[in-house]
Amino acid sequence: MDFSDVDDLAKKISQGDMASLARAITLVESRKEEHWRVSKKLVEALVKKAKPGFRLGLSGPPGVGKSSLIEKIGLHLVARGQKVAVLAIDPSSQISGGSILGDKTRMEELSKSPLAFVRPSPSRGHLGGVTSSMPAVLILCEAAGFDWLLIESVGVGQSEVELKHMVDYFVLLAQPGAGDELQGIKKGILEYVDHILVNKADLDKALVMAAKQQFLAALKIMRGKHIPVDSCSALTGVGVESFCENLQTLKKSWDFSKRNQQWLYWFQSLLFNQFQRRVEEDPQWQKFLLPLESEVKNGKLLPYEAVDQFFKSLTSKGSSS
Amino acid sequence: MDFSDVDDLAKKISQGDMASLARAITLVESRKEEHWRVSKKLVEALVKKAKPGFRLGLSGPPGVGKSSLIEKIGLHLVARGQKVAVLAIDPSSQISGGSILGDKTRMEELSKSPLAFVRPSPSRGHLGGVTSSMPAVLILCEAAGFDWLLIESVGVGQSEVELKHMVDYFVLLAQPGAGDELQGIKKGILEYVDHILVNKADLDKALVMAAKQQFLAALKIMRGKHIPVDSCSALTGVGVESFCENLQTLKKSWDFSKRNQQWLYWFQSLLFNQFQRRVEEDPQWQKFLLPLESEVKNGKLLPYEAVDQFFKSLTSKGSSS
Repeated sequence: MDFSDVDDLAKKISQGDMASLARAITLVESRKEEHWRVSKKLVEALVKKAKPGFRLGLSGPPGVGKSSLIEKIGLHLVARGQKVAVLAIDPSSQISGGSILGDKTRMEELSKSPLAFVRPSPSRGHLGGVTSSMPAVLILCEAAGFDWLLIESVGVGQSEVELKHMVDYFVLLAQPGAGDELQGIKKGILEYVDHILVNKADLDKALVMAAKQQFLAALKIMRGKHIPVDSCSALTGVGVESFCENLQTLKKSWDFSKRNQQWLYWFQSLLFNQFQRRVEEDPQWQKFLLPLESEVKNGKLLPYEAVDQFFKSLTSKGSSS
Repeated sequence: MDFSDVDDLAKKISQGDMASLARAITLVESRKEEHWRVSKKLVEALVKKAKPGFRLGLSGPPGVGKSSLIEKIGLHLVARGQKVAVLAIDPSSQISGGSILGDKTRMEELSKSPLAFVRPSPSRGHLGGVTSSMPAVLILCEAAGFDWLLIESVGVGQSEVELKHMVDYFVLLAQPGAGDELQGIKKGILEYVDHILVNKADLDKALVMAAKQQFLAALKIMRGKHIPVDSCSALTGVGVESFCENLQTLKKSWDFSKRNQQWLYWFQSLLFNQFQRRVEEDPQWQKFLLPLESEVKNGKLLPYEAVDQFFKSLTSKGSSS
């Protein structure tokens, strides 16, 4: 891709051009060194112009109905004339390059709305950048005028923690099950969740009620403040409207200034991303790395010693930056 | 912990002292800078003395019965007078510090054998080192005289790939299910698996046979060489003995020299581990990092720019190593 005219790309994004937005997201997700330079310029150009959208994180165990519910929420919001971007983080793909959702089209009905932008899940083409690039992706979407940013965690385990550091409001989706509501949910998540939605409320009402009460009881002990627990159904739409109205109210009086706190997390994430990038392709770093790798591979140098030698070379002899 | 006398610790491990081995594993798993120095010395002291044990990796989706089967295999081997160490990697704990298995005692029956060493799963105390330290842990166990090293992947997704780079022989556990054998198994794993064991062979025999045939068909297309597919039952023990006899035969004529290839992977893994360690606690690095973090947190500096400035400072001004 040619990204030579950053100002032009920034301008088109500001005008809400979806194709330019999609290209720019691919750019900031790239791990190539030259794309890092362009991404930096682009984000610099847009970060101050971007009007904050409400960043909603949605997490939950596989099978809970995340995608269906997000689509329902998105449809509700676009029906009110608001622009909705749907994104996904999948930390497992950072290393393996695999996507759980694969290539199937996501949220077909929502995708048809001119007010919606549904980003496919990360695929093999986006090695490495998905989590560390998400804060930049969110800024790009806000610059393109999106009012709502719905971010789904499609990974398992770590993704909820990553997501928490990127959003304004963090929702956990759960499902009713005979006394087993916490199955598949790491208990730590209750320490920072802002809202719990028990999905599949179209199923057994007593089970749904029991699930809500169990969460309320757990949250009361853990948090010492009221955390809302509601039920809904992505299938019938029950509960989705009141949840969205609740979000509209929150959004109106939201203090977006506390987002800067999240920049620290973004910084650390980019720091590791950049280290990896340089280990892989910085020509100056290769001068130190390749001879060490060769000795290690031949069993002549213990990896501990090779690591020490690498950092010594890096920080004493100097290298281009 | 006091690790001032590395030579003494190395000697005790060589004599097969289990308490010293357990302490040393905690040491190499630690992310503290001072422990890195001691770990390096300890591994240097033991790496040449260690007689290779057979490193067997076992992976498979949650619920397939990994722990039960590993215990059965371990019991079979100790009954023949061989020393067995059971270890686990859980890459998800690298960041979150969480363990899927929690604190429950693992493999109670096997744990009772004086010939067995069952390492509990990583817990919150072992942030960061579990995957990058495993090669060192394996060397320690071999120095302590273990003939067999059974390494279970308790994480999801990435763990199989990590495990593959640490073992001599990689076994995938699967379970029979109506035409759905690949559920929960990333297809990529078939590209490097050495053996497939269909567990729960005590269940429906037709389903077990169907699962075996499906795997054989998939492997034939993907690999172009014969990859064994067997069935077994961790519950009844069926198939475990023949699998273990098969392993004994393999072990006798195994070429352990190719292990040095895996050191390259170990090196890369330690490189990232050491980078993270220094970002967190190297006093020289903090001199560059803290002012940048402060500006980022206050929204005065874009994380991209902060990262660039950090690497520039690191590689031009120099820092202690």
